[in-house]
Amino acid sequence: MPVGTQGSVKGMTPRDLLASGAAMILCNTYHLALRPGTQVVRDAGGLHGFTSWPHPILTDSGGYQVFSLGQLNRVDDDGVTFRSHIDGAPVRITPEQSISWQNDLGADVIMCFDECPPHPATHEQVTVAVERTTQWARRCRAAHARGDQALFGIVQGGVYDDLRERSAEELVAEDFPGYAIGGVSVGETPEEMRRVVSLSAPLLPVDRPRYVMGVGTPEDLIDMVGDGIDLFDCVMPTRNARNASLFTRQGSMNMRNRRHAEDPSPVESSCECCTCVTFSRGYLRHLYMRGEMLGPILGTLHNLSFYQSILSEVRQAIRNSAYSEYRRKWREAKEQGDEHDA
Amino acid sequence: MPVGTQGSVKGMTPRDLLASGAAMILCNTYHLALRPGTQVVRDAGGLHGFTSWPHPILTDSGGYQVFSLGQLNRVDDDGVTFRSHIDGAPVRITPEQSISWQNDLGADVIMCFDECPPHPATHEQVTVAVERTTQWARRCRAAHARGDQALFGIVQGGVYDDLRERSAEELVAEDFPGYAIGGVSVGETPEEMRRVVSLSAPLLPVDRPRYVMGVGTPEDLIDMVGDGIDLFDCVMPTRNARNASLFTRQGSMNMRNRRHAEDPSPVESSCECCTCVTFSRGYLRHLYMRGEMLGPILGTLHNLSFYQSILSEVRQAIRNSAYSEYRRKWREAKEQGDEHDA
Repeated sequence: MPVGTQGSVKGMTPRDLLASGAAMILCNTYHLALRPGTQVVRDAGGLHGFTSWPHPILTDSGGYQVFSLGQLNRVDDDGVTFRSHIDGAPVRITPEQSISWQNDLGADVIMCFDECPPHPATHEQVTVAVERTTQWARRCRAAHARGDQALFGIVQGGVYDDLRERSAEELVAEDFPGYAIGGVSVGETPEEMRRVVSLSAPLLPVDRPRYVMGVGTPEDLIDMVGDGIDLFDCVMPTRNARNASLFTRQGSMNMRNRRHAEDPSPVESSCECCTCVTFSRGYLRHLYMRGEMLGPILGTLHNLSFYQSILSEVRQAIRNSAYSEYRRKWREAKEQGDEHDA
Repeated sequence: MPVGTQGSVKGMTPRDLLASGAAMILCNTYHLALRPGTQVVRDAGGLHGFTSWPHPILTDSGGYQVFSLGQLNRVDDDGVTFRSHIDGAPVRITPEQSISWQNDLGADVIMCFDECPPHPATHEQVTVAVERTTQWARRCRAAHARGDQALFGIVQGGVYDDLRERSAEELVAEDFPGYAIGGVSVGETPEEMRRVVSLSAPLLPVDRPRYVMGVGTPEDLIDMVGDGIDLFDCVMPTRNARNASLFTRQGSMNMRNRRHAEDPSPVESSCECCTCVTFSRGYLRHLYMRGEMLGPILGTLHNLSFYQSILSEVRQAIRNSAYSEYRRKWREAKEQGDEHDA
């Protein structure tokens, strides 16, 4: 799921996005609530009307941005007070406020307002966050006013197995139509992240979508699909593309590297995206070196298409009962590539 | 003709450009000679291969950038020495060097290396520039090594009628397949520019393309077509779009203006471009206010499409013997718009 922070996936038109294979985008409630304001979006026909993306949209709750971007003033059992990262104005978010904003924005899937503790955090700190997250999830459900939006719960619990189990158990009891694993990719090691996801996924109902927030590399996604994860969001394909880092089956490639200057081959020869079908590595390097906007545009188109291709292949492998083989082959190609790059 | 300074029209893929109605792009020899180097482009199949634009391409001579961007060290009868605006390295351009670079780049239309004097300049200074421009045009023709590229001459002469006449006469005697009017839009008043073009155009053969370099507003283009001009290049549609200034039939519109915030209408209701068909003024304002890349992308697509529509209408009006009426109606709509905006 490509991430559209402000109601657009950076540099991509809806047509480009669709061509990449994307079926769903995520928009950030926090950003949209600050500017242009959720009522402006509501009056423009909700996010579908405002952004002209006619396919599924998910909004996050705003919690993650409050805890990561804002100047946090106070967290209490009722909600969070912080200062806007734009103008310093005080903003209050409660579970009810988050849901009201998300009802205005009108996405197909909306998320409970949760407390995402920083990493590292003590067992005691995370316990408080888990308790609040459960209480807030109940208040979100009570406040949710639109039957046409699916409200997902978010499991917290940091790197503590017992707290992950408790959080999952309490949320599953609330019978949400889908569940996210939150509080990962916030500074813990990759091994801790994998362990937390592997532990948490089986605690969630198999007949509901399971969503890992803010993850990850192609390898992360392939592995986590094996854990039963259905849904991801991540800035990596778009942010990396803006920084000239493009994905291939042999690993990522820095397009600013001098060795690409006269290379007529595409970024990834197996890729059928518009960028790879049309442009050479040499031209892309030129665009990035000159700071031309077209570099990030074409790079983003490739990285998104690459992610979508990989996930399409994983789905096909699962249908063919060949998931494990697919994962093994992927890793082998990647390892050969890493050797080759070194 | 959209301007692709570094071998790309900023923010536009070839597909977007083609959709805007563009038939030809301009690439800057100066920029490409400094980076990535003309031999890199030549070895990638010339500009058509390098940029994947399969339609006509024109390169300028590099002269304009030398006189406007570079740190000019010396102009003599043989050529120009200047310091690269990138790294300060000394670069020498002669007519022969410019043509050699343009032969490498492989555009369909290439331009003579001329001396473009600053404005204001004395009659004496411009006389020297006109004499050099003629001498250099002859040397360019002698150096030109590719029969598949059309080499155009460039008329100079500043705002001096006698020098414009002399320059045109000397160049027409050389029998180039096309002619440009250079040294306009360099700081003179709009009235001086119009006068110079009106004066110069009839001095050039009617059976050869006549090209005004670096111009202009939609009004400029409509008027100059009446003078017999066939070809234009200008950064205005793309640069203005990056600065949130979008063209409409009622004048330009600053998309950052607060009054657009909740406006569901398209930028220009008569426009059939992808931007106007898909997105509201309110959404575009949001993108520009948030600094999202998609704002300049969608704005550029509109401004280019708008220019192409106007020129398509002008061509149709000429075919219908209705050019004067078209020009009159355009001006009336514009004046009403200006009143409305005030």
